[in-house]
Amino acid sequence: MTLTPLAPPMAATFAPPVMEARRWLEGVTFPADRPLINVSQAAPVAAPPEGLRRAIADAAMTQTEAHLYGPVLGMPELRTELAAQWSKAYGGTIRDSNVAITQGCNQAFAAAMSTLAAPGDEVILPTPWYFNHKMWCDMASVTAVPLATGADLLPDPEKARALITPRTRAIILITPNNPGGVEYPPALVQAFMDLARDHRIALILDETYRDFDSRETRPHELFTDPDWGDTLIHLYSFSKAYRLTGHRVGAMVASEARLAEVEKFLDTVAICAGQLGQIGALWGMRNLGDWVAGERAEILARRQAMVEGFKRLNGWRLMGCGAYFAYVEHPFTLDAPDAARELVRQAGVLLLPGTMFMPETDASGKRQFRIAFANVDAQGISTLMDRLSTVSL
Amino acid sequence: MTLTPLAPPMAATFAPPVMEARRWLEGVTFPADRPLINVSQAAPVAAPPEGLRRAIADAAMTQTEAHLYGPVLGMPELRTELAAQWSKAYGGTIRDSNVAITQGCNQAFAAAMSTLAAPGDEVILPTPWYFNHKMWCDMASVTAVPLATGADLLPDPEKARALITPRTRAIILITPNNPGGVEYPPALVQAFMDLARDHRIALILDETYRDFDSRETRPHELFTDPDWGDTLIHLYSFSKAYRLTGHRVGAMVASEARLAEVEKFLDTVAICAGQLGQIGALWGMRNLGDWVAGERAEILARRQAMVEGFKRLNGWRLMGCGAYFAYVEHPFTLDAPDAARELVRQAGVLLLPGTMFMPETDASGKRQFRIAFANVDAQGISTLMDRLSTVSL
Repeated sequence: MTLTPLAPPMAATFAPPVMEARRWLEGVTFPADRPLINVSQAAPVAAPPEGLRRAIADAAMTQTEAHLYGPVLGMPELRTELAAQWSKAYGGTIRDSNVAITQGCNQAFAAAMSTLAAPGDEVILPTPWYFNHKMWCDMASVTAVPLATGADLLPDPEKARALITPRTRAIILITPNNPGGVEYPPALVQAFMDLARDHRIALILDETYRDFDSRETRPHELFTDPDWGDTLIHLYSFSKAYRLTGHRVGAMVASEARLAEVEKFLDTVAICAGQLGQIGALWGMRNLGDWVAGERAEILARRQAMVEGFKRLNGWRLMGCGAYFAYVEHPFTLDAPDAARELVRQAGVLLLPGTMFMPETDASGKRQFRIAFANVDAQGISTLMDRLSTVSL
Repeated sequence: MTLTPLAPPMAATFAPPVMEARRWLEGVTFPADRPLINVSQAAPVAAPPEGLRRAIADAAMTQTEAHLYGPVLGMPELRTELAAQWSKAYGGTIRDSNVAITQGCNQAFAAAMSTLAAPGDEVILPTPWYFNHKMWCDMASVTAVPLATGADLLPDPEKARALITPRTRAIILITPNNPGGVEYPPALVQAFMDLARDHRIALILDETYRDFDSRETRPHELFTDPDWGDTLIHLYSFSKAYRLTGHRVGAMVASEARLAEVEKFLDTVAICAGQLGQIGALWGMRNLGDWVAGERAEILARRQAMVEGFKRLNGWRLMGCGAYFAYVEHPFTLDAPDAARELVRQAGVLLLPGTMFMPETDASGKRQFRIAFANVDAQGISTLMDRLSTVSL
């Protein structure tokens, strides 16, 4: 059956990659002595700590407001808490009124974009890119202009400058990067901020994985500039640090004027973020600092295991590794999409091909995989390396 | 500070009306013997029944999956339950695979629209319209073509036919209507279905308030047609019937082919609906049938009190009354926006002016108000009538 009517921008948007990859598992059985290793998605697989769960459960039982509409831009206490913690962490001034709470970070991105770019406008995305960013651009009739990165996966501000046209509305950076795993140096982030400001376009900085950054120092100095709000839009997700993926809570930090426009989008598409998720996020921010530090230490240990593991793999090259992700070049004759399907069958490993993170015009994704290793412990990483090393495709 | 860049479609979208109305309360004090009567928003103000709250709380404490990402199109059990209940209620065949769960009904509308209409396309909305529908059209660069209704607030299919152009992609109906309160007769709904099918455009039927319909018979026969999926997109909200506004759970029923496109939007903007809200909605559907019937009886009693009350008000005319809303003509010299602000100060009543539900080209909204009476009991409605009858503006 042909679908009528069907909006051409939606028809041109690809299907959700994670759902597609999940379908590769259909009909494949995994023997008990070789269970599936699923490194396809970046998501916690365990519940949050008991205290956070209890905060949610208690609110559900005793707080009427936990079941009612809240303000479009989020729960005031959560906005205040995030503003205070961010001000301290980034060494700048972020007010409550600079914070919006969203139904997850993907929605924060969509909301920000809808205030920036009209149909026919352009935004610059380093590649490999995060596929949901590309999907939003497609369905909003905004052109995603790819900014190819080099072997180190770091985008070059001068190459970006050459891509700016009168239709460019924003540059989008993710650090630590998804899918690349690399942590952008502060000077690089600053160079993009300066570039964006020079051209009076926005810099969207997605720091979903900030809590797992390996550096002990500030990841950038952008918020130390009192005028950050003229250019910077900062995105965050509570999903990873506090294991709240199923509650859909994210955040945006931007100028008050920007948030007045964002409020229109959120009112129309969300009305508000879920109250229980916000209650959980607030409890987490107030009480789980040490626990998150422990989670980070564990992720950094796994990262180290990945780095060590790839040293003993022939023909593979680890291009980037950090936060939840490794991004790698594979040695197979098969292209990445076919090789990924074969890895499910032959190695019991589900990972995503680089082509899912690349424009069709860039063939380099055929040689690459993203490995979301965060859920796999050191023993599992060792097993993953064994399986990858023994397959020939 | 001017905002740069700012997408023109977003700049052209108006600010959320409910938030604007809330600002009218700033600086106004309400004496203890004349507290504010807030009939501005259609939302429960009490928590859901204890059993539902406990279902959520228990899941938060004991179910890991309640905290994790779920399928983009929703929890399978909830899709199954809604498909079964809808099939029975509407006398047709609705499969699990025809159901998508969304982060509220506003998001269901945005998702449906994004699959239907590209920038420059048109959709037909009867007026007075639901402002969030108009806001989505504005920010998506889709033209909302107003279909003026008459004194009975019922849209005329023949007038709609005259508005259809080669760019028309859908007709959008809400029944029981927000803001009009009227229940569309089955034959009228059918006539719009036939009209849409004739022109190969979609019919979006928003039945958010279906649980409070006064009729004991089916509100329409659309689902009895095995081919309903070629034209019909049905929207629902769990917010009103089960008091789940703060959890953001809505639903869409459409063809599988349509939902494959909807899945792209939901993956990009939502990833999934909140798990705890879905758990609550499922518990409600399975256990609260009798309770919802009682809620409906109470709403219908309030509706009757509104109808009786307006009979004794001079110069007012009740145009429509049902579900959560009365839509009325006022007798004031002042236009509705100014009169609404004065009613806050002089009568302690917050309601919304008809202009918020009308295109600027239609002046009739200046003579009209929407009164969301669902939260006001019979005594409160009596007090509301007393206050309205003694003000002269």
